Amino acid sequence: MRHLLSTKTITRDEAIALLDIAEDMADVAGREVKKLPTLRGKTVVNLFFEDSTRTRISFEAAAKRLSADVINFSAKGSSVSKGESLKDTAQTLSAMGADAVVIRHHASGAPLVLAQSGWIDAGIINAGDGTHEHPTQALLDAFTIRRRLHGTASRGKDLDGVTVTIVGDILHSRVARSNLWLLTTLGARVSFVAPPTLLPADTSAWPATFGFDLDTAIDAGPDVVMMLRIQAERMSASFFPSPREYARGWGLNDERFARLRADSIVMHPGPMNRGLEISSAAADSARSTVLEQVANGVSVRMAALYLLLSGDREDS
Amino acid sequence: MRHLLSTKTITRDEAIALLDIAEDMADVAGREVKKLPTLRGKTVVNLFFEDSTRTRISFEAAAKRLSADVINFSAKGSSVSKGESLKDTAQTLSAMGADAVVIRHHASGAPLVLAQSGWIDAGIINAGDGTHEHPTQALLDAFTIRRRLHGTASRGKDLDGVTVTIVGDILHSRVARSNLWLLTTLGARVSFVAPPTLLPADTSAWPATFGFDLDTAIDAGPDVVMMLRIQAERMSASFFPSPREYARGWGLNDERFARLRADSIVMHPGPMNRGLEISSAAADSARSTVLEQVANGVSVRMAALYLLLSGDREDS
Amino acid sequence: MRHLLSTKTITRDEAIALLDIAEDMADVAGREVKKLPTLRGKTVVNLFFEDSTRTRISFEAAAKRLSADVINFSAKGSSVSKGESLKDTAQTLSAMGADAVVIRHHASGAPLVLAQSGWIDAGIINAGDGTHEHPTQALLDAFTIRRRLHGTASRGKDLDGVTVTIVGDILHSRVARSNLWLLTTLGARVSFVAPPTLLPADTSAWPATFGFDLDTAIDAGPDVVMMLRIQAERMSASFFPSPREYARGWGLNDERFARLRADSIVMHPGPMNRGLEISSAAADSARSTVLEQVANGVSVRMAALYLLLSGDREDS
Repeated sequence: MRHLLSTKTITRDEAIALLDIAEDMADVAGREVKKLPTLRGKTVVNLFFEDSTRTRISFEAAAKRLSADVINFSAKGSSVSKGESLKDTAQTLSAMGADAVVIRHHASGAPLVLAQSGWIDAGIINAGDGTHEHPTQALLDAFTIRRRLHGTASRGKDLDGVTVTIVGDILHSRVARSNLWLLTTLGARVSFVAPPTLLPADTSAWPATFGFDLDTAIDAGPDVVMMLRIQAERMSASFFPSPREYARGWGLNDERFARLRADSIVMHPGPMNRGLEISSAAADSARSTVLEQVANGVSVRMAALYLLLSGDREDS
Repeated sequence: MRHLLSTKTITRDEAIALLDIAEDMADVAGREVKKLPTLRGKTVVNLFFEDSTRTRISFEAAAKRLSADVINFSAKGSSVSKGESLKDTAQTLSAMGADAVVIRHHASGAPLVLAQSGWIDAGIINAGDGTHEHPTQALLDAFTIRRRLHGTASRGKDLDGVTVTIVGDILHSRVARSNLWLLTTLGARVSFVAPPTLLPADTSAWPATFGFDLDTAIDAGPDVVMMLRIQAERMSASFFPSPREYARGWGLNDERFARLRADSIVMHPGPMNRGLEISSAAADSARSTVLEQVANGVSVRMAALYLLLSGDREDS
Repeated sequence: MRHLLSTKTITRDEAIALLDIAEDMADVAGREVKKLPTLRGKTVVNLFFEDSTRTRISFEAAAKRLSADVINFSAKGSSVSKGESLKDTAQTLSAMGADAVVIRHHASGAPLVLAQSGWIDAGIINAGDGTHEHPTQALLDAFTIRRRLHGTASRGKDLDGVTVTIVGDILHSRVARSNLWLLTTLGARVSFVAPPTLLPADTSAWPATFGFDLDTAIDAGPDVVMMLRIQAERMSASFFPSPREYARGWGLNDERFARLRADSIVMHPGPMNRGLEISSAAADSARSTVLEQVANGVSVRMAALYLLLSGDREDS
């Protein structure tokens, strides 16, 4: 794998291969010494144009567990904020010997530009670009679902026939998009539930079903309910009347959680707004995978870094 | 040792054991290669809700000298500032595989909450919580005093009969509190000197003597005089008329320093306000331990990380 | 080498020795595992009083490639901003065991003060001080010129007879000063071109020629044209009428670039203001060494850290 930019272009076999390597990486996490020498001498740069301590730390932990050197580059206060172009930043990191660049950017498509530009030799991992994609999030979500369904027998398996209901701000969510492509490729069936203001206007290219009513969706008994985070900046932008109104209509509150099929799993990419899109009872229940998602995030990112940085990177 | 939260609950034997390990760690600092492989594969997270470059760097140097991986997490600009709870932050760090969390927090008791909550498996080290405690500071102070008194014969010794006068903002000082408990446990006798506005209202539970007059305290010839830092925010809060007034009444100026017993040692946790609570002559004299305290801080933190992260952490 | 503070005091032989070691380091960059164990157990502190992500990352990459531990210390939000003196900061870092301190400071001379003070045992590297010097920049520039001229046969060579024209804000540029001393020592002939407002008032001590007209300088056919960055803060300080005016008079635009001798090389320390001091065609041409300078920066900084931290540091 040359870059990891999007889940849209990942084939079923590629996805399963990556998830299988992540299984191996998860095994390492259980050892006394969690460190592998695999990426010794490689340099991973975390190039973050948006703050995201959670995602940055997850990549940093993943890279260090593989013995790579990590350099954190926050675009704030750097020459980037002095008007340096993405091109010059990229070429500079390349010249310094970066082997992989993990980029989070407010502009959709920035990681793709970087990868296609020829400005940089490094492998590029998209760690979230605008409202476009967040592929490692989708991969860790798929990994988490597969493990819940198949346990230690997960290797080689896809998600054939699994029903996943994703609830919340679909319009702006890169998590929703990356999950849609990946889960569908793996054989799952995705449906989205949101207030009309938070669904895309044109969904003809989206292989999913759409609904406005969370109660109906809950009663349909999906295998997975994935609640998305409501960003604070949406609340003041009249996408919905008030946080209370949102929680009442589209939050996974205690009452809805009680009605959910007994073996459905509850997911959230974090950080959670407890009491808004999800109640504490739902978030902390045994059916919640919130913390498994965080742990699996490190394993999946180890797998991605491994695929980009070891062996023959020209493969795909 | 499971966590290091407070010096109040540390027994005399535990304290001496930790200080003795710190002696071993101090020996490492003298080697050509100062690195030990002891904590290879362990991850230490510095979770700082308050800025403190000094303390963060000391823990970072300690962890790296033991070959641990270090991840710095400043709560500013993180999802914490987006309203994420301490619980969710803690569970996230735990899920990512943090083995130890070094926490500095503006709220007294936050590290204890973290340790008792069950939210996190990691060992917790309190690096300063509100006006409550700063245990590694007290341990490095005790280590420094013991070394000045006993030199290379320090191992196994306590501070029986040593007299320590702590001067300054006792009311708000976590350093004063942590030192009181630890020094007393080790057999020292502590007295506090401060303007009445900077002493606690109720001192009945404090095993110390209290005074307002620094000159009297100096003339009593204590073994140790420890000057506390006056925080800038106190100066504008009318705890005392003016910095000049404070320096005149409670500063270790040249005149007082000259009157101090010839073999008394002078301590300060740093960073110093030279000319306010301490004169440069006092700070830079051979009797000052200010820099020894900094160096010993790394050794003591290495010992604490070692006790928390190696061997059987369930001991206490 | 004990410290690296200035290029003014470096002899021709010392400079060539450092550049030759940098050649060895550049060879390492081509290996599969780019890491050397040379500085294992050494601690390098990046002490930055001014933001400079580029320079900080270059030193961080250099130190990590030599297996040193790196601690980043941004003076913002630290006790430095609470009024701690440079002396106390330096002594603190020394006590914590820093082996080298890479310092960037807004005050000209701060690194020299640090090195001469006796406050700190560590080797000091000046990473830019006020309008004074930036020695590693000059060394990487000399390295880059030498490589362009002599390729793999560079070892042992100086820059005898090479003509270098440096264009831009000479008045405030530490890059210009460090290059002047080093290039002259290596046998090159330096001329400066700038608007009269951006040249020093007294240049009697500068072994260079001075001019106001870039076109004349271009037509003279220098071996090297080095364009300096115009800092944003100069633009609003009436050193020149407007950015457009500056670009017309002193920018290396496409027209001037076309007239430049066919084998002249074009240099820029970065980050570039494309369209202001340099056009994109000039910056991205095969004659531009902008990215080689970045790559060589890591090699030169590895060489500097190596000379300061390994073997007998008391040599000079």
